Amino acid sequence: MSTNVENTPRVNRQFLLASRPVGDIKESDFEYKEAPVPTPSQGEALVRNLYLSLDPTNRIWMSDMVQYMPPVELGEVMRGVAIGVVEESKNLFLKPGDIVTGLLGWQDYALLKENQANFVTKINPPLPDPLFAAVGPLGVTGVTAYFGLLEIGQPKPGETVVVSAAAGAVGSVVGQIAKIKGCHVVGITSSDEKCQWLTSVGFDAAINYKTTDLNSALTNACPNGVDIYFDNVGGSILDTVMSHLNLFARIPLCGLISTYNSTEPVPGPYNFGLVLMKRLRIQGFIVSDYHNRWHEAIKDIGEWMKQGKIKQEYEIVEGLEKAPKEIMKLFNANKIGKLIIKIV
Amino acid sequence: MSTNVENTPRVNRQFLLASRPVGDIKESDFEYKEAPVPTPSQGEALVRNLYLSLDPTNRIWMSDMVQYMPPVELGEVMRGVAIGVVEESKNLFLKPGDIVTGLLGWQDYALLKENQANFVTKINPPLPDPLFAAVGPLGVTGVTAYFGLLEIGQPKPGETVVVSAAAGAVGSVVGQIAKIKGCHVVGITSSDEKCQWLTSVGFDAAINYKTTDLNSALTNACPNGVDIYFDNVGGSILDTVMSHLNLFARIPLCGLISTYNSTEPVPGPYNFGLVLMKRLRIQGFIVSDYHNRWHEAIKDIGEWMKQGKIKQEYEIVEGLEKAPKEIMKLFNANKIGKLIIKIV
Repeated sequence: MSTNVENTPRVNRQFLLASRPVGDIKESDFEYKEAPVPTPSQGEALVRNLYLSLDPTNRIWMSDMVQYMPPVELGEVMRGVAIGVVEESKNLFLKPGDIVTGLLGWQDYALLKENQANFVTKINPPLPDPLFAAVGPLGVTGVTAYFGLLEIGQPKPGETVVVSAAAGAVGSVVGQIAKIKGCHVVGITSSDEKCQWLTSVGFDAAINYKTTDLNSALTNACPNGVDIYFDNVGGSILDTVMSHLNLFARIPLCGLISTYNSTEPVPGPYNFGLVLMKRLRIQGFIVSDYHNRWHEAIKDIGEWMKQGKIKQEYEIVEGLEKAPKEIMKLFNANKIGKLIIKIV
Repeated sequence: MSTNVENTPRVNRQFLLASRPVGDIKESDFEYKEAPVPTPSQGEALVRNLYLSLDPTNRIWMSDMVQYMPPVELGEVMRGVAIGVVEESKNLFLKPGDIVTGLLGWQDYALLKENQANFVTKINPPLPDPLFAAVGPLGVTGVTAYFGLLEIGQPKPGETVVVSAAAGAVGSVVGQIAKIKGCHVVGITSSDEKCQWLTSVGFDAAINYKTTDLNSALTNACPNGVDIYFDNVGGSILDTVMSHLNLFARIPLCGLISTYNSTEPVPGPYNFGLVLMKRLRIQGFIVSDYHNRWHEAIKDIGEWMKQGKIKQEYEIVEGLEKAPKEIMKLFNANKIGKLIIKIV
């Protein structure tokens, strides 16, 4: 991994939030801008971004609905998790060459203010290989999968775990951890290709909900019912899985991607009475809630990856300028694994 | 308390389930029958019912929707929790004069089969005073309040607890336990009379949702937001309270009385995305889940009642024949405290 200082662009390319999406994201919701590369003052550090993570939660940040962080302001640099290298530092905790990850934004350069240095996490050597795993299984999506499944889901050996958006960056790790924990694991996804990939990484079954009757497919794939439904999507898939849940089943609610582009609030499960009758637990969570336990997840997942028990696919797209178009892929179900922009 | 053996009717008056209600319960959903008083065989015991508890969950048992117990069959004696006295016993564990509580049904006499003796709980002397507290705060409704609030809700001192159907048998005990635990407690109910009663037993505030704008009333009554919403009703009140919940708030889902008479499945909260954004926990429970910890609740509640920290109102209606009409009171919000039929 070279930091390519000699190729540093003279300008700081940025994408600002130009408008709040109505329904699907459009490229015109972002505005391209070339700003000067900032110079750090006392206490500040300059980070050059290397990889930008594209995540469904980006859509939440673009809206002004009630959410778990303040929304991105119009005219502000689009928020995004990235990996970068410190190029210049007047901050005590960061030195040139340090590799950091955090909310560095959709831009070539992030200027970390003195009080923002702890918004980034330093990645200590040995660096992950590939480095961009630090925004995948060894970063935000892996940690999401880990705590959502293990802390909220509380899987026990022999239980059945169903995960939606199973071929995605989070879902695929959820299923593989559930297998490590001795569960029967079924993934719901949107193409036969993804189904094949899921069973190749150890899922007991995978259902293409676009070509199959989900209800009868779940009956076949989950003969003992469902104990944990790790939900990334919400909507009608949640409704269908609800009717397969066992007593005392848990629903770690990680995402509601099917509803993010909705222009109206989306109601909860069609038959909400089941929550009472089956004594279900539905619990929302955000990975940042586990910020101070991050290392636990990374340690375990790193070990499992070394043992070949967790695999991850990546789609690496070169060019920051592609981000406004590529992000739409997250919503049209057109990828396997983790989507990352290589900033060149 | 006299067992009035000399007044024992010669017949066993029973109400059978005649039809499954569509919408509201009608008296014609029950069929009156006079059966012979049964004679216990080896292993069996005959119980004469004294008090019949009427509870919103009775409505669930009358339907054939997915539920937490098998529905009452058409033509079967209506299921109900009651207190009775053992009149005759050929069972090792029960002797004449024992006071028991359990699913004894809408009838004068229940014949306990050998394998049903453990469906009832023997109430050991000293008996509660009044005895019918054993189906109230010292029985099913008190235990429901206790575990729902303390185990599912996990209240911490200084937190704000909101409870719906607050003047009911469960809600009123929830609020009083929450006060004992140092919480700020707000009840939602349906009349000014009930509001006055709630503040008289220690609620910090009570809201008549029929005459007040619930949203602004909650803003006033819960200046620090809501940490626990103990929900007995579901529907639009749940929707409104949702927007007042703090991060990591808990919703012990105890009942959905606003929806039981609905003829269609009722969807979950209007803005389900809040579960994710606010990391809410919604958890259904049924008191029987805590069967083997029943004594913990009774011990604490009994102590609190002795100390005058928990008060309960009762509405005692004389005559088994009134049950089919009285049960409707549970759904038209027309009572304070616990509704009980005295079987005479």
